[in-house]
Amino acid sequence: MATTKGKNLFTPGPLNTSRGVKEAMQVDLSSRDQQFMSCVTYIRQTLLDIAQVTSEEYTVVPLQGSGTFCVEAVLQTTSPRVGAKVLVLSNGAYGCRMVTMCECARVDVDVQSFPEDQPLLLSKVEEVLASGEQWTTVAMVHCETSSGVVNPVEAVGRLVRLHQPKAAYLVDAMSSFGVIPVNMRAAGVDYLVSSANKCLEGVPGFGYAICRKEHLLSCKGNCRVLSLDLAGQYLTLEATGQFRFTPPTHSMLAFTVALREYIEAGGLTARAARYQENRVILVDGMKKLGYTQLVPDRHASPVITAFHYPKHPQFVFKEFFNKLVEKGQVIYPGKVTIADCFRVGNIGQLFPDDMRNLLFCMEEVMKEMGLPVPLP
Amino acid sequence: MATTKGKNLFTPGPLNTSRGVKEAMQVDLSSRDQQFMSCVTYIRQTLLDIAQVTSEEYTVVPLQGSGTFCVEAVLQTTSPRVGAKVLVLSNGAYGCRMVTMCECARVDVDVQSFPEDQPLLLSKVEEVLASGEQWTTVAMVHCETSSGVVNPVEAVGRLVRLHQPKAAYLVDAMSSFGVIPVNMRAAGVDYLVSSANKCLEGVPGFGYAICRKEHLLSCKGNCRVLSLDLAGQYLTLEATGQFRFTPPTHSMLAFTVALREYIEAGGLTARAARYQENRVILVDGMKKLGYTQLVPDRHASPVITAFHYPKHPQFVFKEFFNKLVEKGQVIYPGKVTIADCFRVGNIGQLFPDDMRNLLFCMEEVMKEMGLPVPLP
Repeated sequence: MATTKGKNLFTPGPLNTSRGVKEAMQVDLSSRDQQFMSCVTYIRQTLLDIAQVTSEEYTVVPLQGSGTFCVEAVLQTTSPRVGAKVLVLSNGAYGCRMVTMCECARVDVDVQSFPEDQPLLLSKVEEVLASGEQWTTVAMVHCETSSGVVNPVEAVGRLVRLHQPKAAYLVDAMSSFGVIPVNMRAAGVDYLVSSANKCLEGVPGFGYAICRKEHLLSCKGNCRVLSLDLAGQYLTLEATGQFRFTPPTHSMLAFTVALREYIEAGGLTARAARYQENRVILVDGMKKLGYTQLVPDRHASPVITAFHYPKHPQFVFKEFFNKLVEKGQVIYPGKVTIADCFRVGNIGQLFPDDMRNLLFCMEEVMKEMGLPVPLP
Repeated sequence: MATTKGKNLFTPGPLNTSRGVKEAMQVDLSSRDQQFMSCVTYIRQTLLDIAQVTSEEYTVVPLQGSGTFCVEAVLQTTSPRVGAKVLVLSNGAYGCRMVTMCECARVDVDVQSFPEDQPLLLSKVEEVLASGEQWTTVAMVHCETSSGVVNPVEAVGRLVRLHQPKAAYLVDAMSSFGVIPVNMRAAGVDYLVSSANKCLEGVPGFGYAICRKEHLLSCKGNCRVLSLDLAGQYLTLEATGQFRFTPPTHSMLAFTVALREYIEAGGLTARAARYQENRVILVDGMKKLGYTQLVPDRHASPVITAFHYPKHPQFVFKEFFNKLVEKGQVIYPGKVTIADCFRVGNIGQLFPDDMRNLLFCMEEVMKEMGLPVPLP
């Protein structure tokens, strides 16, 4: 069972965090405190270690706000004032969101869309990248949290580097970082973004970008928003060890503990194995209950799984959701446009017992709702 | 003494928070949880109550990130895509920061500057506002945290409404809200911004704008940044009760408790009285030690006080600061450009005993540094 009191969150975050992570927030530190500044240094170095890149080539820039703020900061910072043109390779809501960000900033944007239940198709990606058009940034999502599909970051990266040598390659790895490895150097990734409250199991409050320093330094003066200027944030952090604007001190103290626990528990391999075990129990159990996945196993992530609504007149999602909440189980609504789905996350302080307990509760709720078990 | 373990923070925030505020962060809630959504509703309504405005006319829009993000969100959201022109009335670093934000966004900006150790001069403000020029937004800072000067929000507001009836009037009340009252309606304030970790004594993670609804609704589509689109944030909160992007759930739970404690302790009157008592003890004690204030009493806030560096060769601020830290007392560096100063804040869970203790420690540090007590 989760080590925290309260409900079990089968969501993409905010998620269940450990007692130690939450206890770390019981201290008030000044943002100029040596202990706090050491935490920031530790966070930045440890994220480089997890990404398996060196501080000679890469740097970590944390940014206040949700992970979305950080994705937008990269798009804004990598887009020159004149001549910016972004290509988004999209197969879901988070790809679409990057398009909206560009439109908001009046930055030229092209989008190549793919079906929501499948990964980006490499042959089509190559066709677009080799079309002769040049982009200043090529962006994609690693694990589309809306569906759970995992996209081929490294294969796309090789194509980006081949056909768009000057473009910044941005990967939104919000729900995959720390669990699905990416060889950033081999993939030619210039910016990889994630947030504190995903697979590294911190609390929300900030996101971070792992940035190739040479590119980041070429972006000074681009950003149209002071708060989201990633180059400015980097330069101030390097010069003073401090944030430009008040950091979420408590969230960052919590993240320090989350990272220590991640490493002590065995790092990426162990975290991925736990989530995968959670997923296997979930998917097997859901199959027995008669549910079908949106995304086939071979393209699915160990992070979150989308299930089709049962085709039964007694199934009303809101009722299903609320009855599960009454039993302390919080699942997540769907977000794809092609099918009616709900989602179940495996991340955070969730363990096999929690997954089995969820399945047990789900069966009970189905019976309460007058649904056949298993579904036909 | 402060109710929290660790150091006493005589800073403008992050500050010492109560045990109850920090304990509220010991729960993980989904951002779609009914309990969390109730907290958001409570926060939004309570801030309206503190501001003494009605929900018919005003609304509270919380925004992830530091308070600066929220000020920038207002500037971005109130500036039309074409024809935007902002006037900043500035007497310090936070006024200057608003100018930088406009420059970043390539929004035309005029700045009327005033000396850092004095409030905005009304005769000059009127001269500018009545010059015939029209602005889309007029912006100023209520309490310049860089100096502690309090600016005349209501008097300036009457002039703005008289001479710039179409302009949005933005007040950065970051370090004053909840302690120095503003009659928003009488002052014609359209947007008043503050953050969780100031006089209401929450932890950092988000800011909020108290917005005149009619104006906010006229701003749809203006914002050049998805994350900072205050109109978008408002519309989604109203339609769904939820944030557009992951909110800092733990910070918001903490703020709910901070607001309850603020009200139970007697609201604005009581909070202002405690801070004022802190300030009187501080200023009297500092005077006895030989320090002089940057800002005369009549213009000073009960929030933070800037003191001139002693003119003595043995005084080195970094040493002074570090020796105080060793004794658990965290003061704050200066931020004005016209004089070498350091700052001492009175806000957060600080009480008269804490102020006296600080003075005691300061005297000890001065002796350790070989400074005369009192200073000549």
